[in-house]
Amino acid sequence: MTEKSLISPRTLQGFRDYLPEAMIPRERLMETARRVYRSYGFSPIDTPALEYLEILTGKGGEETDKQLYHFEDAGGRAVGMRFDLTVPLARFAAQHIVELGTPFKRYHIATVWRGERPQAGRFREFMQCDFDTIGTRSIASDVETALVIHDLLRAIGIHDFTIRLNNRMLLTGLLERRGLAERSAAVLRALDKLGKIGADKVAAEMVDTAGATPEQASEVLKLAEVSGSNDEILRQVEPLVAGSATGEAGVGKLRETLAALAAVGVAEPLVKLDVCIARGLDYYTGTIFETFLNELPEIGSICSGGRYDNLAELYTNQELPGIGASLGLDRLLAALEKLGLVEKVATPAPVFIPYFDAARLHDYLRMAAALRAAGIGVEIYPEAKKLGQQLKYADRRGFRVALIAGQDEFDRGMCQVKDLQCGEKKDVPLAGNYAELIEAVLKLLR
Amino acid sequence: MTEKSLISPRTLQGFRDYLPEAMIPRERLMETARRVYRSYGFSPIDTPALEYLEILTGKGGEETDKQLYHFEDAGGRAVGMRFDLTVPLARFAAQHIVELGTPFKRYHIATVWRGERPQAGRFREFMQCDFDTIGTRSIASDVETALVIHDLLRAIGIHDFTIRLNNRMLLTGLLERRGLAERSAAVLRALDKLGKIGADKVAAEMVDTAGATPEQASEVLKLAEVSGSNDEILRQVEPLVAGSATGEAGVGKLRETLAALAAVGVAEPLVKLDVCIARGLDYYTGTIFETFLNELPEIGSICSGGRYDNLAELYTNQELPGIGASLGLDRLLAALEKLGLVEKVATPAPVFIPYFDAARLHDYLRMAAALRAAGIGVEIYPEAKKLGQQLKYADRRGFRVALIAGQDEFDRGMCQVKDLQCGEKKDVPLAGNYAELIEAVLKLLR
Repeated sequence: MTEKSLISPRTLQGFRDYLPEAMIPRERLMETARRVYRSYGFSPIDTPALEYLEILTGKGGEETDKQLYHFEDAGGRAVGMRFDLTVPLARFAAQHIVELGTPFKRYHIATVWRGERPQAGRFREFMQCDFDTIGTRSIASDVETALVIHDLLRAIGIHDFTIRLNNRMLLTGLLERRGLAERSAAVLRALDKLGKIGADKVAAEMVDTAGATPEQASEVLKLAEVSGSNDEILRQVEPLVAGSATGEAGVGKLRETLAALAAVGVAEPLVKLDVCIARGLDYYTGTIFETFLNELPEIGSICSGGRYDNLAELYTNQELPGIGASLGLDRLLAALEKLGLVEKVATPAPVFIPYFDAARLHDYLRMAAALRAAGIGVEIYPEAKKLGQQLKYADRRGFRVALIAGQDEFDRGMCQVKDLQCGEKKDVPLAGNYAELIEAVLKLLR
Repeated sequence: MTEKSLISPRTLQGFRDYLPEAMIPRERLMETARRVYRSYGFSPIDTPALEYLEILTGKGGEETDKQLYHFEDAGGRAVGMRFDLTVPLARFAAQHIVELGTPFKRYHIATVWRGERPQAGRFREFMQCDFDTIGTRSIASDVETALVIHDLLRAIGIHDFTIRLNNRMLLTGLLERRGLAERSAAVLRALDKLGKIGADKVAAEMVDTAGATPEQASEVLKLAEVSGSNDEILRQVEPLVAGSATGEAGVGKLRETLAALAAVGVAEPLVKLDVCIARGLDYYTGTIFETFLNELPEIGSICSGGRYDNLAELYTNQELPGIGASLGLDRLLAALEKLGLVEKVATPAPVFIPYFDAARLHDYLRMAAALRAAGIGVEIYPEAKKLGQQLKYADRRGFRVALIAGQDEFDRGMCQVKDLQCGEKKDVPLAGNYAELIEAVLKLLR
């Protein structure tokens, strides 16, 4: 062999390959998301990975800009890779909404990139699954957004979760009443840290950073003392916002949303008011959602979102209110793995046909074609190696059933159907267009 | 309204948005590809959009380098965006094949980027759907590759197509016999243009560029005179390669492949020998495929591929032979549109519920939930606008069925089921957990 210099095969830091064992469940998650989004009439869209840099940086602060992959293209244009799906949606809506008409409901499942320093569990490339309803202020869409989150998690196989619900109008009303309307952004940013750093540190931040008085901070933190059932919580917050039209409207919308959700059986403890969540972005103006896995609250919200008044103000004068949420696919996948909810298989086809008799390729091809026509995935081993070696391969990949036929079986017009999970075997006739074989395999797979 | 300066919402040249009408069929194509690939045991993988630049440019010539989007990242690394899925597969295989084991069958459906000057129908961002079998030289995989192409097009709804088949060993043998072994790359590049520029110009290029004598060129171009059935073609090429072990083996492999395909009913005219196709890349060493739509041959091959001896030689000393093909998703989609095979709908949900009576949101939500639980997609209009306006929206989106219920219908415990294609209406009882309603809708959708 001649000596040659090889290029070291490796991925960039913060990036990763998805091998079949990881990609099969990841694809299943995406499919489930698509199916649930579609079942509510959300339509798929796609936008370019690369956008004009000014489109991407228009909305973000310095923080965002630093995280952005950007460069000059061969035509001298400043371009960047999308870092979320909201900015592209805003640009897309500004550009196409006249053609599309409102209400416009879209989902977008796509990769985004962030140049941030990769930490444990943080990557520079990840998949987002967003859905939004644009062009309506109706509470019906707020209700629907919560229902989609609920159906999505159920469809994924998660039953022990909590959708936490709040409304920014409630918070805005409270801050208005306490004379903090001008400082709301900073105050809410502090409030949002309640779960992480506790009430004392939040109060300190409200005073030190947001410029509230200690009395004001303590009034806002009365929110943290609110507890009980959703009804009890609503009764406790009502006096805190009384006198603020915005705050009272916020409480009314929460009550209306909860009632509609309960009408279709989505009630406590699945949906829980949490009047302290604010979500960082200034962008939200109404209903806010966060979703936690009760067994893994520490991983944070896996599906968050909320209502906004004006999606695309940087790109159009047309006012586009809406509501949406985003499923953090890769974070959820990591959680599912921790919870043991991810099946370890490396084959998407359940049936394996060893290439047992070198002269019988045509027969194996016919068997496989008949099974596939019946909707059953089948892999034929490509080489006529020793049977034991082929079955070892099948084991490693995680096939469910093997169909073993050599000279002897073909002479008898039979095929051995082997359950690879329990090892049981049984001979099945091949005659009659493989009808019995198909039946036997379907029975094992059920 | 205050004057403000807007950022013009636009996409970069050569990039495009996919609106629902385009994205719904595009997603359906991807799903079909996934389903067919899986039914043969190909597993999904994914790799990063960004790779070390040296990984990407290792194999390509200058042509490729110019087309590459590349830049320096914040860490000073030279990085590039993948321009195909073969180079990432080679890197991936070199890195993981020990863990994965062989044979390894993967599919990869992902976006690639090329900085080339965009022309009509050419974009800088497009989707590829590749599948490959790595780690085996067995002809069974060649046969399977053709079967996957066949099943894929059938599943998409295309029946009038031709899979063109050749084997590079046949060409290599012929060139050996004519003393052109050393010049084979340039000769084959010329031969590949036969369909586009004709035999005379190909002969001229063989002489002028590839350095063949006119006699040699004319000998090679005997391939262009070969015609008839697959069997007749094989008989005519046999004397052209006689005496070359490689060429004779090539003919043998073609015969074996055709026989196996015929055994599962995939024969002429679906599979047709074309001994003049060579496919540009040096990389191919055995079986070659191209696939044409008989009604639109001018768009070129929509699914091409072939066998190679050594996938990842730039990254590993392990020899990795294999075979694969790539479906040009966006090219195919454009073709399907031309052929009128793309249904124009802008909703993935077939059923529409107008928000007719403002007080009845809970009822609409219950109806929709019951239908969704039965697997039927339903969109509720979010606002209680005039019915006519809502139905106009439904028309524009392409819903199939509307479920209309106002005060009057609810009082009678009924719902009007309207077929939006023919306009027929019928009243259906709501009682009994919507069982009759579900039945009526399913009947219309069938």
